[in-house]
Amino acid sequence: MPASAETASYRLNHVMLRVKDPKKSLEFYENVLGMDVIDKHDGGDFTLYFLAYQHQKGVSRGEREAILELTHNHGTENDDSFAYHNGNNEPKGFGHLCVSVDDIQAACDRFEKLGVKFQKRLTDGKMRNIAFILDPDNYWIEIIATNKPQ
Amino acid sequence: MPASAETASYRLNHVMLRVKDPKKSLEFYENVLGMDVIDKHDGGDFTLYFLAYQHQKGVSRGEREAILELTHNHGTENDDSFAYHNGNNEPKGFGHLCVSVDDIQAACDRFEKLGVKFQKRLTDGKMRNIAFILDPDNYWIEIIATNKPQ
Repeated sequence: MPASAETASYRLNHVMLRVKDPKKSLEFYENVLGMDVIDKHDGGDFTLYFLAYQHQKGVSRGEREAILELTHNHGTENDDSFAYHNGNNEPKGFGHLCVSVDDIQAACDRFEKLGVKFQKRLTDGKMRNIAFILDPDNYWIEIIATNKPQ
Repeated sequence: MPASAETASYRLNHVMLRVKDPKKSLEFYENVLGMDVIDKHDGGDFTLYFLAYQHQKGVSRGEREAILELTHNHGTENDDSFAYHNGNNEPKGFGHLCVSVDDIQAACDRFEKLGVKFQKRLTDGKMRNIAFILDPDNYWIEIIATNKPQ
């Protein structure tokens, strides 16, 4: 019974990832991936950053879909030995975020110029129509073309 | 430089989670959370399920935001000792998905009737305006009200 009257208002509002250093993460998600910080919450010993693309601009935060919430537990950025787990080695779970782009070659060329780390370039492996880049915590971000066969 | 010309087409297309048993996961995401399977890919020894709410109906898969991709590596459902890691105990990383709903009390009452497991009921703890339910792999799903203060 998908899309029943009972669930008609439900929306996939956001996904939350913990990040070690918000300065690095915001630089990445704002400047490299082009998202905007649309809200911020200071919880005392932690801060939450809410980012989104502006395709749903004008829609309230609760009505939006596809917000990215980054949780920063204060102090982790100063601990050299501290790292979050990206879910792609044991124990596995979360896999990746995916950003679609109109021109995947231009996007990947741009990421190279900006010094972004790649998990998989377009030319690596068999799947030549997708790439994976890494955010500052090594979370995987798949890059796909908006209108090409997937 | 968020929303620059270079990143204007970028969209947060999907988030990928690995699931142990797609039968249980699809029952949960379709019937409990009201999402639709909009695409499926059989990769031989794995299957990918793409689910979404229909608020962006008519938009192509690549142009959509907030798709949930569930990856099933065949066989895990038959291994009693197998479990994925939800990211909320060590090693931490991914935190949760969040679904917004118009009437959070009605939604939580409905989840109770459907036998959904709760990580945090509305009445637990200090934050009385959010709940957390658990999907079949124990991934956390925050439930918030669409239009209430957050």
